[in-house]
Amino acid sequence: MNSELASDPGESTVSVDLGDRSYPIHIATGATGRFAAAFARSLGDVSHVLLIYDAAVEPWAEALAAQIRVESTRVDAAAVPSGEPSKSIAQFGQLLDWMLDRGADRRSVVVAVGGGVIGDLAGFVAASFARGIRFVQVPTTLLAMVDSSVGGKTGINLSGAKNMVGAFWQPELVWIDTLAMKTLPDRSYLSGLAEVVKYGVIDDAVFFDYLESNAKALVERDPEVLRYAIRQSCLAKARVVGEDERETSGRRAILNYGHTFAHAIEATAGYGTLLHGEAVSIGMQMAASLAIRLGRCDAGVLERQTEVLQACRLPITFPEADVAAMLPVMMRDKKVAHGKLRFILPTKIGHVELVGDVDPAEVETAIRAHC
Amino acid sequence: MNSELASDPGESTVSVDLGDRSYPIHIATGATGRFAAAFARSLGDVSHVLLIYDAAVEPWAEALAAQIRVESTRVDAAAVPSGEPSKSIAQFGQLLDWMLDRGADRRSVVVAVGGGVIGDLAGFVAASFARGIRFVQVPTTLLAMVDSSVGGKTGINLSGAKNMVGAFWQPELVWIDTLAMKTLPDRSYLSGLAEVVKYGVIDDAVFFDYLESNAKALVERDPEVLRYAIRQSCLAKARVVGEDERETSGRRAILNYGHTFAHAIEATAGYGTLLHGEAVSIGMQMAASLAIRLGRCDAGVLERQTEVLQACRLPITFPEADVAAMLPVMMRDKKVAHGKLRFILPTKIGHVELVGDVDPAEVETAIRAHC
Ligand SMILES: NC(=O)c1ccc[n+]([C@@H]2O[C@H](COP(=O)([O-])OP(=O)(O)OC[C@H]3O[C@@H](n4cnc5c(N)ncnc54)[C@H](O)[C@@H]3O)[C@@H](O)[C@H]2O)c1
Ligand SMILES: NC(=O)c1ccc[n+]([C@@H]2O[C@H](COP(=O)([O-])OP(=O)(O)OC[C@H]3O[C@@H](n4cnc5c(N)ncnc54)[C@H](O)[C@@H]3O)[C@@H](O)[C@H]2O)c1
Ligand SMILES: [Zn+2]
Ligand SMILES: [Zn+2]
Repeated sequence: MNSELASDPGESTVSVDLGDRSYPIHIATGATGRFAAAFARSLGDVSHVLLIYDAAVEPWAEALAAQIRVESTRVDAAAVPSGEPSKSIAQFGQLLDWMLDRGADRRSVVVAVGGGVIGDLAGFVAASFARGIRFVQVPTTLLAMVDSSVGGKTGINLSGAKNMVGAFWQPELVWIDTLAMKTLPDRSYLSGLAEVVKYGVIDDAVFFDYLESNAKALVERDPEVLRYAIRQSCLAKARVVGEDERETSGRRAILNYGHTFAHAIEATAGYGTLLHGEAVSIGMQMAASLAIRLGRCDAGVLERQTEVLQACRLPITFPEADVAAMLPVMMRDKKVAHGKLRFILPTKIGHVELVGDVDPAEVETAIRAHC
Repeated sequence: MNSELASDPGESTVSVDLGDRSYPIHIATGATGRFAAAFARSLGDVSHVLLIYDAAVEPWAEALAAQIRVESTRVDAAAVPSGEPSKSIAQFGQLLDWMLDRGADRRSVVVAVGGGVIGDLAGFVAASFARGIRFVQVPTTLLAMVDSSVGGKTGINLSGAKNMVGAFWQPELVWIDTLAMKTLPDRSYLSGLAEVVKYGVIDDAVFFDYLESNAKALVERDPEVLRYAIRQSCLAKARVVGEDERETSGRRAILNYGHTFAHAIEATAGYGTLLHGEAVSIGMQMAASLAIRLGRCDAGVLERQTEVLQACRLPITFPEADVAAMLPVMMRDKKVAHGKLRFILPTKIGHVELVGDVDPAEVETAIRAHC
């Protein structure tokens, strides 16, 4: 057993260091009863909470609301329909109207309970109401636990453009309880594992070793292994975000490993055919192949990554890919500078670099290697 | 003639000092021809400008757009209907859709041309698009020149709540050309003067002296006097904002001198009966009376303030006031702490302080003194 795990009594805290915007990420299993205390520790006296939750996790939301009410704090709760379409200007406006109607003011606190959709939406609502009020993230999908709830990116979609509108707005507390995984469908859970593997490849070789040894337990949602995997993922994300909070230095771009390919797969396959993490899994395979072709790393990186992704039951090829359509999409991606393709590519397990001016023919070959 | 004026060749720059968010306010008369150069100085190479303007100032917007195009920058322009209802979620969403449609990206720059409505709306659009892109304020009302374009408060309204949604987002440049005053109706212009007088009372006794001597020329829109008054107003606002950018220390509250009364007047008279500056003028009179009653300043403060406001042709009483309705509105105002009324009150010309726990009976008497 990993030595850090042995010294971990089950609950732990990771801190995101951003000066006066720093906050803790609390990771535990079955800790709802301690939520109110952690909430009070991070936020002090709060008189009014606006709890915004995914309709699919109503029981969770109710349990948390009950906890907060124990401290005689007033709680108003609003259910948001599940799914990406809720990240809209219309839903944003509705929630703001609802908050005003509930008497929210600048001392009120928003609590977001749900996956990335709810976190992104409620976070942007909190960032904008009265020019910014405090908020807490309670992620209930694995993707939200290891990725979207940490780092302060909030936002909504415009028709045809994801995350086009939003704010950088950090939460005061991220509260992760792996019990929420009980109701999460397998495909969504496994999809979240792609981002977990990503952190190993881009930033933490020791963690990657751990994943190689513990993939089976992780897939089976063993609480201890799961907590450890979430913890290492949050540590990696917090490190990167701490170095580049607002995506200005370029450092934060390493989180996009595999994502330029993934976005092109998602866009050309029609959003919804693949889950995001599934596309990321295939995209990381393409990126590793590209790195090998460009002489940036040896074939062992792809081999080890392939084995871990397969052990996590993630897809590693996409036979239905429309390769001819993918390249133009990639040329429009944000990481294209002056018409040149740029990629985050591994040099070895645990380290990536930004590689510019990549020949489109090499990119196409890397794509075809996984179709 | 004032010595600082003598050394001012007509154009001048005030700087707002906010660390890496600092920016210049440029003040001139008939300087459109130099806009492109100032724009390039503040923003560097820009490939795409989104010019958002009040439909009432189309010729101004077109002249500026032509200037920017001289540098072969692509300019897309959108007219927004005049008036407060444009500060809505619907208009916000429409502008964002339009920007996406025009191919805006995170390097694009928003230029807001109009009064406070356009500046607040376009500023929030810039703050939110791609989680924040750069923007420039070109205020075309006096209120916008001396108040709303400086300080980074952006936002829109919810039905029944002004400025309830928004962001703190600083511009890269504020470009003030007093020629825009040519088309501004008298009532709007004079209304803006109330905020100018406010700066003298709260922060700058020498400037107040100047206003006493030059009120007539100011009312007649003498360009030199007008530029000087705008400059001193911007200096005062920049000083206060520099000390309390996000309204956290309480310092920024001094800008609300007269405003607790003014908001109550506006709310009970029905928004639109009085212009904002007219209500502020009456509100400052009530605040000065309250200060005298509480023994915070001598009667001379009110006398001098009355004379300057009258010389600026601003109302100093509001006989139609619904006094009984005003107090409850004031109790709901943001500056009420734990049910106690708090006011920004003068101690002498050029200095104000926050006074808490004020007896409502004294407030009512101060209101009645100006009805
Ligand atoms: N802000 C960021 O940094 C960031 C990073 C990555 C992704 N994102 C965003 O996150 C979103 C995707 O997040 P997601 O994958 O969590 O999607 P999601 O929020 O849509 O959740 C996926 C599905 O799971 C359901 N669900 C949530 N928790 C559940 C639970 N405990 N039990 C059963 N069902 C549950 C939801 O109702 C939904 O149908 C996207 O909008 C993406 O843009 C944001
Ligand atoms: N952000 C801040 O710090 C701040 C401060 C004070 C006020 N405000 C906001 O500012 C708004 C009020 O600003 P305003 O008084 O400029 O109102 P406004 O923008 O509505 O302009 C007033 C009127 O003048 C017209 N107009 C504008 N420029 C003109 C010109 N050069 N010639 C002829 N007509 C012209 C407009 O079409 C409008 O009808 C309010 O929404 C208020 O909340 C914001
Ligand atoms: Zn991802
Ligand atoms: Zn005002």
